[in-house]
Amino acid sequence: MRAEIIAVGTELLLGQVVNTNATFISEELADMGVEVYYHTVVGDNPKRLEELLELADTRSDLIILCGGLGPTDDDLTKNILAEHVGVPLVQDQAGYEHMMSFFKNRQHPMTPNNLRQVETLKDGIPLQNRTGLAIGCLYKGEKNNYVLLPGPPSELKPMFIEQARPLLQKEFPAPEKLISRVLRFYGIGESLLVTELAELIEQQTNPTIAPYAKPNEVTLRITAQSVDETSGNVLLDQVESEILAKVGEHFYGYGEENSLEKVTVDLLKSRDLTVTAAESLTAGEFQSTLGSIPGVSTVFPGGFVTYSKETKASFLDIDRSLLDTYGVVSKECAQAMAEQALAKAGTDFAVSFTGVAGPEEMEGKIPGTVFVALAQKDGETLVTENHFSRDRSYVRHSAVMKGLDLLRRAILNKN
Amino acid sequence: MRAEIIAVGTELLLGQVVNTNATFISEELADMGVEVYYHTVVGDNPKRLEELLELADTRSDLIILCGGLGPTDDDLTKNILAEHVGVPLVQDQAGYEHMMSFFKNRQHPMTPNNLRQVETLKDGIPLQNRTGLAIGCLYKGEKNNYVLLPGPPSELKPMFIEQARPLLQKEFPAPEKLISRVLRFYGIGESLLVTELAELIEQQTNPTIAPYAKPNEVTLRITAQSVDETSGNVLLDQVESEILAKVGEHFYGYGEENSLEKVTVDLLKSRDLTVTAAESLTAGEFQSTLGSIPGVSTVFPGGFVTYSKETKASFLDIDRSLLDTYGVVSKECAQAMAEQALAKAGTDFAVSFTGVAGPEEMEGKIPGTVFVALAQKDGETLVTENHFSRDRSYVRHSAVMKGLDLLRRAILNKN
Repeated sequence: MRAEIIAVGTELLLGQVVNTNATFISEELADMGVEVYYHTVVGDNPKRLEELLELADTRSDLIILCGGLGPTDDDLTKNILAEHVGVPLVQDQAGYEHMMSFFKNRQHPMTPNNLRQVETLKDGIPLQNRTGLAIGCLYKGEKNNYVLLPGPPSELKPMFIEQARPLLQKEFPAPEKLISRVLRFYGIGESLLVTELAELIEQQTNPTIAPYAKPNEVTLRITAQSVDETSGNVLLDQVESEILAKVGEHFYGYGEENSLEKVTVDLLKSRDLTVTAAESLTAGEFQSTLGSIPGVSTVFPGGFVTYSKETKASFLDIDRSLLDTYGVVSKECAQAMAEQALAKAGTDFAVSFTGVAGPEEMEGKIPGTVFVALAQKDGETLVTENHFSRDRSYVRHSAVMKGLDLLRRAILNKN
Repeated sequence: MRAEIIAVGTELLLGQVVNTNATFISEELADMGVEVYYHTVVGDNPKRLEELLELADTRSDLIILCGGLGPTDDDLTKNILAEHVGVPLVQDQAGYEHMMSFFKNRQHPMTPNNLRQVETLKDGIPLQNRTGLAIGCLYKGEKNNYVLLPGPPSELKPMFIEQARPLLQKEFPAPEKLISRVLRFYGIGESLLVTELAELIEQQTNPTIAPYAKPNEVTLRITAQSVDETSGNVLLDQVESEILAKVGEHFYGYGEENSLEKVTVDLLKSRDLTVTAAESLTAGEFQSTLGSIPGVSTVFPGGFVTYSKETKASFLDIDRSLLDTYGVVSKECAQAMAEQALAKAGTDFAVSFTGVAGPEEMEGKIPGTVFVALAQKDGETLVTENHFSRDRSYVRHSAVMKGLDLLRRAILNKN
C-alpha cells in the first residue's frame, strides 16, 4: 500500500511550527509495512488543498490528512475532504457527548463553532479524541482511503496509536512484516563506510541497507521484509555479519536511541569501573556528556576543567616547567593532565583533553589540533594526537567522541 | 514571489529525521517577505523527484531543494536538477580546494565519491559550505529559480544565512523593505509573555510581533515594512520601548544568533571580571556552555565537576559534616561549593549547581529541585532554590540558564 501524508496549516508554512506529525506517522506506517512516498504541507487554503487531494488520488492508496479540524473558520480540512469525496458531514453522537461533558466539567461556555469539531464524514468511521475535542475519521473510498487526524501532536498521537493504527491494520492487513535494526559506527566517515560496503549496498534488495551520517558517527539501518519476525531476524543477522566482517572495527552498538556515551557508561557500570576527566578545550563537555546518562554517579565521581595554564598547574599540580617546556597543546601536557586527574580522583580511568578549538591558532598550532589522553590505574597512559576539522563546536564534539571511544576500547581491553 | 520547499531523503519518509530544514527556511523566507505555498518531502527516487520538479515549475517562482548533495549513490538531487534544467554539472574550484584541505588536515583518505560533493550546475552560482563539504547552488532559470542546499542542518543553516539569503535579496529585491529585530527574554514563559503583551500583539499590523519559544527562553521578532531602513528602525524603536515597558525585566539582549552565554561572557570581558564553577548535577554543562564562546579563556580559567559527595569534600575541601548534616541537595551545600570554588580559583565570581536531575529522587527531594548559588569576591553569596520541570536534560539546561542569569545580573549590579 502506498501512502502519503498531507499536513494542513499556514503556521507550518510560516515556520512557526515543525511538522513532527509527519515524522511520527511515517515512523508508525514504516513499522506497519506501509510505504510513505510523500509528505506535503499546504496552507489553510481551500483551492490548494482540493488540488492537492486530486493529485494525491492519482498516486496514493492511503492519504493521511492532519490539521484543520478545529472550531475556527480557517479549519477547513474536513469540509474540503467531504466535498472532494461527495458526501455530507454528519454529527457524531459519541464525539458530541464527550464534548458536552468536557464543557460541563470545565464550567466554560460552549461556543456554537465547537459543534464543527464533532462532525464526521457520512459513511466514514469516526475516530474519537481522548485528549481533545475534534474527532478524526477513516473514510474508505472506491479507490482511495483517507484518514483525518487533528493537528496538535498531543491529540494526534493517541488517536493514531489507539484507534487509527489498529483500524488500518484490520482493514488493510500487511502481507509482509518489516523488521529493522540500527548499527552504530564511530571512527569512520559516511563516504568511507559506503565505499567499504559498496558491493553489499549495490546488491541490497532484502534486507536493505541505509547509511545515515550524524555528527561524528554513522548509522546503518538494515531492514528485512519477511512473513514473521524470526525469519526477518535471520536475514538481518546474516547481512549484519557481512557488514561487520568489513567494518566491524568501527562498530560500537545497536539502536536508534543509543549513543557512544550510553554504551561507554553501561560498560563502566557492568564492570564496576570508574572514570574522571581533566578538560581544557572541551571545558566540561566530556563530563557533561557522561552526566546525560541517568545513574552515571556510580561510575563518575567528578573531575576538572582546567582551561588556563594556571589551573592546569594549580588544580592538577602539574609542573609549571613541563607546561612551559612543551606548551599546553602537547602530548606531554595531555599525559600529565590524565595522570594527575587519575591520582587526585582515585578512579580506574582518567581522560584528558587539550588542544585548539579555534577560531584562533594557539602556540602556533592550527584549530583542530587536539591531544586526547587516557590514564589507567593498572596500565599505560595512551596519548592520541588528532586533527579535527570544521568549526569550534564540531572540534570540541569530535574531541569528546574520541575520548569516549578511547575509554570504551580501554574497558574492553581490560579483560 | 511564490516559493516552495522540497526536502529530499528517504530517511524523512521513514520518520527517522524531522524536517526542521523546511521550518527554518520558511521562517527565513517569511522574514524576507517571500510567501511559501508548499513543503514537500520526497524520497531518494529520481522519477518522483523529477515529477515533483515539473509540478513545482507550474506553481512556484522559487524552488528550494534541500538534501541529497552528499557523496553516496542515493544523493541525487543535484543530478536530477541538472537534467531537469538541461545543463551539465561542473567542478567548483573553491569547493574542491576546501575539500582538499579538509582531507589533508584529517589525514584520512579521500574516496573518489567525494568529488560529487563539489560539483555544481553550469551557469549556477555556487554556495560554499563553511561547515561541511557538499556545496550548494543558486540556479536562475528562464521562468523558475532553484536553490540547492545540503541536508544536515549544521551545514544548511550557515549556508542559507551567510550566502543564499543575501544572494536572494540581491537578485530578487523586495518592493518594500522588511526590517526586523529579535529581542531575547529569559525568566518568562511564552504564554505569560504573550498574555502580558496581548494588547500590543492584537493591534499589530506594522511592525508585526512574532513570539517564539526556545528551550528556557523566548524571543520576539519585531518586523517593520517601510521604504527605507531609517524609517523602519523608527517604527521598531517605538514598539520595542512599548514591549520593554511591560516585560523589560526579563529582556537580556538582541539578535537571532545571540545567547545568554554570549551576553554574559561579553559582559565579563568588557569589565575584566572572571568566573569559575563547581557543578554537581550539571556535570560540566555550565562550564562547557561558557567554553562555546570563542575567547572565553580570558575570563574563565577553569573549574570543578563534583558529582559525588566524595569529590565535593576532596576537590573543594568542603566539611564532610556540612554535607552529612544538610545533604548535598541543600542551599548550604550550594553555598559552600560556590565559596570554596571561588577561593580555589581566585576569580571574581563562582557559580555552583547541586540538585536532582532525575529520573530518580535523591535525599527525599523530587527531580527538578536545584540549588544554584553565586559567590562574589567582594559581596554576598546568593543562593537560589529552583523547581524545574520536564526531563533530566531539560532540568540540567534550566539550571545552566539560571546560573548564567544570576551571573549576568551580578555583573550588572557591580557598578
